[in-house]
Amino acid sequence: MHKAGDVRVEERDDPKIVDPTDAIVRLTATCICGSDLWPYRGIEPADGTLMGHEYVGVVEEVGDAVTTVKPGDFVVGSFVISDNTCEICRAGFQSKCVHAEFVHGGIGTQGEKARIPLADGTLVATPGQPDPELVPALLAASDVLGTGWFAAVAAEAGPGKTVAVVGDGAVGLMAVLAARRLGAEKIIAMSRYPERQELARYYGATDIVEERGDAGVERVKELTGGLGAHSVIEAVGTQESFMQAVGATRGGGHLGYVGDNHDVSIPGIQLFFAGIHALGGPAPVRRFLPDLTLPLDQAAEGCKAMDERRATKVLLTV
Amino acid sequence: MHKAGDVRVEERDDPKIVDPTDAIVRLTATCICGSDLWPYRGIEPADGTLMGHEYVGVVEEVGDAVTTVKPGDFVVGSFVISDNTCEICRAGFQSKCVHAEFVHGGIGTQGEKARIPLADGTLVATPGQPDPELVPALLAASDVLGTGWFAAVAAEAGPGKTVAVVGDGAVGLMAVLAARRLGAEKIIAMSRYPERQELARYYGATDIVEERGDAGVERVKELTGGLGAHSVIEAVGTQESFMQAVGATRGGGHLGYVGDNHDVSIPGIQLFFAGIHALGGPAPVRRFLPDLTLPLDQAAEGCKAMDERRATKVLLTV
Repeated sequence: MHKAGDVRVEERDDPKIVDPTDAIVRLTATCICGSDLWPYRGIEPADGTLMGHEYVGVVEEVGDAVTTVKPGDFVVGSFVISDNTCEICRAGFQSKCVHAEFVHGGIGTQGEKARIPLADGTLVATPGQPDPELVPALLAASDVLGTGWFAAVAAEAGPGKTVAVVGDGAVGLMAVLAARRLGAEKIIAMSRYPERQELARYYGATDIVEERGDAGVERVKELTGGLGAHSVIEAVGTQESFMQAVGATRGGGHLGYVGDNHDVSIPGIQLFFAGIHALGGPAPVRRFLPDLTLPLDQAAEGCKAMDERRATKVLLTV
Repeated sequence: MHKAGDVRVEERDDPKIVDPTDAIVRLTATCICGSDLWPYRGIEPADGTLMGHEYVGVVEEVGDAVTTVKPGDFVVGSFVISDNTCEICRAGFQSKCVHAEFVHGGIGTQGEKARIPLADGTLVATPGQPDPELVPALLAASDVLGTGWFAAVAAEAGPGKTVAVVGDGAVGLMAVLAARRLGAEKIIAMSRYPERQELARYYGATDIVEERGDAGVERVKELTGGLGAHSVIEAVGTQESFMQAVGATRGGGHLGYVGDNHDVSIPGIQLFFAGIHALGGPAPVRRFLPDLTLPLDQAAEGCKAMDERRATKVLLTV
């Protein structure tokens, strides 16, 4: 992306191993993410930025220090480079690794090949080569499923809990799926689009709320005995959606926010009097990748699901 | 408080039992809280507002439904009325009780007597009558100690953790004490005043950081291997202190914020990329009161401490 609105496909030299911890990956598939729209719209700077950070592919070459992936391995990558050994990574926050670097920017996976630094800490190999129809599910694990899963974990979705999900895009729908898998009792999807509502129900939503803002908050309260949800997931990133999520969380409840909230300004006093737990940010996808990618048989459902939501996400097969 | 800056001591009728869950308390001592300055400065409305919400006293009369306190009991109250039985209270968030009502405003304890609704859920009786020198410690439990304790718990202070405390007022100092009692390994008090630093060390601080803002964040990072503190407590409530607290928290760490932050506006993107847990708001003091007030022998230390920090807090003996 040369500048806002100016995206070009250009010939570049093949990437080469630079550090012994690098891997060169031939990309099988990659995505355009909603967050790519920030630089596209000029809200984030773009100046020859290499785009793309959701990716799966086959390892072509590894540096001498790489031990967990080897040439020929099919790998799923996370969108933040991490060593997976530092104190922050060991605590499960690989997106804040002391060696963190966003794949978007100087690396970029919207191309034929990419050099992935800290390959052991960033990539996870699948057991064997996946069937082609599993590729979209594995790609989803790289960002949208990993992010939705983190949001559900951050919101402490689990047995006996009511979970409200603000946002019916790819991440919001994956958060619904994650909340269901984590055992949530009631899952309220906030969506006004029939086709998204249908997908949300497919992934496990038990209730749909069409209202937004204060009216949406009131509906969530009506569905939760006046208290608000135990767990709320924010997967949009606008001022309205963020404050809607804060308002829908019961006192002492948990908000997991993963919407990339560039334009949000949170009134301190509103957050203060809400009295809620909040955890968010770029998801430490690497924490969840081993669990999300290894049970390939379980991925079939996710794959079918991905298939059905093509409209919510653009998949690029390289 | 008739209006901003206009505080009067006036004769009023004695309060009477209205609901069967009420208690009439003759106040022994009450405090002026830093948060009283909000209406005093005109930032919150005041229109004949009854002031005072930190209080201890002796029960004079109870309604028919009150079972846990009786006339003659010495009681410590929390600054939010709570039933202590609803789902929110049972989860430990009594300040968000479905029957929550702030004592400040329509009740007020800066007087000779007060009617305390939901007495069973709001008041905790001490075992026997405390020695007069223990009264300040018990009064501290009612707000500043309870709030500091909540902040330390919200920030997940505990063994092996480094805790940074932003704010050297009464609540910040009590948070230092709480962090020490909860077993924190290293406690960094952020203070530039020698007498407060001395108090902070008395309560258990192991390190002092005099710098504020970005420079303060850098110093905390230097003291924590570049990572930031595991646990950060915000006990001021200004824009600078809040963002300093966010910045001082390591990725995946925990921020407990109890500073009454009327004027704070949190840039969403800064909170997002911090990748931290945050929990705050008016402290559910009632959750902690039984533990804070029952071991009266342990309160002696707190009492002595209260004595030494008179300059940081105004105590009113009724």
